[in-house]
Amino acid sequence: MSDTKIVAVDAMGGDNAPGEIVKGAVEAVQTRDDIKVILVGLQDKIEQELEKYTYPKAQVEIVPATEVIETAEPPVLAIRKKKDSSIVVALKLVKEGKADAFVSAGSSGAVLVGGQVIVGKIKGIERAPLAPLIPTKKGVSLLIDCGANVDARSSHLVQFAKMGSIYMEHVLGVEKPKVAIVNIGAEEEKGNALVKETYPLLKECKDINFVGSIEARDIPNGDVDVIVCEAFVGNVILKLYEGLSSTLIGVIKTGLMSTLKSKIGAALALPSLKKTLKSFDASEYGGAPLLGLKGLVVKTHGSAKSKEVKNSIIQCVTFTEQRINHKIQQNIGADQEVE
Amino acid sequence: MSDTKIVAVDAMGGDNAPGEIVKGAVEAVQTRDDIKVILVGLQDKIEQELEKYTYPKAQVEIVPATEVIETAEPPVLAIRKKKDSSIVVALKLVKEGKADAFVSAGSSGAVLVGGQVIVGKIKGIERAPLAPLIPTKKGVSLLIDCGANVDARSSHLVQFAKMGSIYMEHVLGVEKPKVAIVNIGAEEEKGNALVKETYPLLKECKDINFVGSIEARDIPNGDVDVIVCEAFVGNVILKLYEGLSSTLIGVIKTGLMSTLKSKIGAALALPSLKKTLKSFDASEYGGAPLLGLKGLVVKTHGSAKSKEVKNSIIQCVTFTEQRINHKIQQNIGADQEVE
Repeated sequence: MSDTKIVAVDAMGGDNAPGEIVKGAVEAVQTRDDIKVILVGLQDKIEQELEKYTYPKAQVEIVPATEVIETAEPPVLAIRKKKDSSIVVALKLVKEGKADAFVSAGSSGAVLVGGQVIVGKIKGIERAPLAPLIPTKKGVSLLIDCGANVDARSSHLVQFAKMGSIYMEHVLGVEKPKVAIVNIGAEEEKGNALVKETYPLLKECKDINFVGSIEARDIPNGDVDVIVCEAFVGNVILKLYEGLSSTLIGVIKTGLMSTLKSKIGAALALPSLKKTLKSFDASEYGGAPLLGLKGLVVKTHGSAKSKEVKNSIIQCVTFTEQRINHKIQQNIGADQEVE
Repeated sequence: MSDTKIVAVDAMGGDNAPGEIVKGAVEAVQTRDDIKVILVGLQDKIEQELEKYTYPKAQVEIVPATEVIETAEPPVLAIRKKKDSSIVVALKLVKEGKADAFVSAGSSGAVLVGGQVIVGKIKGIERAPLAPLIPTKKGVSLLIDCGANVDARSSHLVQFAKMGSIYMEHVLGVEKPKVAIVNIGAEEEKGNALVKETYPLLKECKDINFVGSIEARDIPNGDVDVIVCEAFVGNVILKLYEGLSSTLIGVIKTGLMSTLKSKIGAALALPSLKKTLKSFDASEYGGAPLLGLKGLVVKTHGSAKSKEVKNSIIQCVTFTEQRINHKIQQNIGADQEVE
């Protein structure tokens, strides 16, 4: 068994905080004895939730934070003003080496800004991309970047491709991960100015397995492992993926409930159907790491329930064990030791 | 009954040409006696297909074209060199007023380039956007632009919003169509440089019903009628919409067939399910018009079968009857009569 990894968790972030967050943290330490969770937030509320469960006490600690950053707050201002917010306090634990990782379901903007400002980027990394795993027919693909820093340059996209490859190889165990760039056609001469500029640079990269363009239509097939795009496009893909999946599943459920005959059919078919649809459920795959930072910062869905929180916490262990940041710094950064 | 509308159809374009195209044309004239179809392409092959059907002969004409533009050909070159291709010949019929509209399932690039070069843009229209209808929970929304002209400017997007509104109001009969811009958050200050520049311009527009930003997640809900975006983003949305829908439906079918119990359930539920999923089938809604041209050019899916071809031909009648081009020219163009 490996060393204990310490994960700071934003107990106050997300639609279901603190209840589901604390529950997820408890489930994580119940599942794994190599994890210690630091719950950061309003002490009373966290204690109240913890009382509901039986769990190895030594694996859970509370670090109080009296403020909460709301989703609607302007991120830069919130990080600057709310010094005693759960996000700022937790990120400082990572910065100071008191925690290996930080998991939050709170304000995306605040987590992204705070991660870069407080934890800081690895030297030589130009931008820290948010890289969620999205479900496909064959498993999962890494969609990089879905963050808040839009209008990227080609050099950013090349770094995203490299960081994504390292992540998929060492965290997911994919050998020679296939890398593609999101485009509106398969041919090299297609695309917008950014894609046309980036394509030849990716083609030249010797340390990635670049397979060319991918059209959005083919993303759900899961033929590539790392899908590179600028954050605006990535955000559109991620959100549409989530919105369309849930809409279609809803539409199908309505269809199944529309007649008596179909209701009986649905009752018989439901167990198999549920199993299949589970593979297309984004919450199965934990949160999205913000890559290229000096510590690990993971953003989960605002709507995250305990299962996703638990998975996100567990996901941090592999990331830390595999020394992903060290690999990123060695291969892409300015060749210095990670602080 | 209104005047007969003449629709030129690219008999050689698409994966299922000429069989499904000719079949769709025949179905269109069998359904409506106010449509005349001109089938453009290789005369022998068209005649061979036509022989299979009984239909009002006076409503179908063949105009021969000896060349075919393939999907993989560079569009600009193809339009310039293949003067006797079905696309070029048919577009000239529109340009010369011998046809009211042109429908093609062939090379998107060639149809888009040819439409702009041969038919020409309405004076004052900066770009001709491709605007497909996409299925939503509540019906359909117009996604504008999904064409090949990427890296748009804000003035283009404002024209797209206006053209889209005119289309939805007069072709689909939506009163005061709701217009939104694709963004990565609901707040006005969010977005990339293009969206931030365009947002206030759309807000100022008095002749559209601008409701603000729309996140990709909410597109399938169908709360807005006109979804404005730059063509690269639009293309990604359109293709992902199609790819994810078909993947999910496939995954669900596999799930339903996985056990004996679920198979029996599926057999009972299938009729209701099919009806529901039909509403999410893009081919129900015909092709995508290329707006802002001096004539009507409609692009259908490369995989179009007869039903989509028929629907696309019929769709041209309302567009022409409602004098959409005239309305675009009066409201957005340089205030001249459409040639």
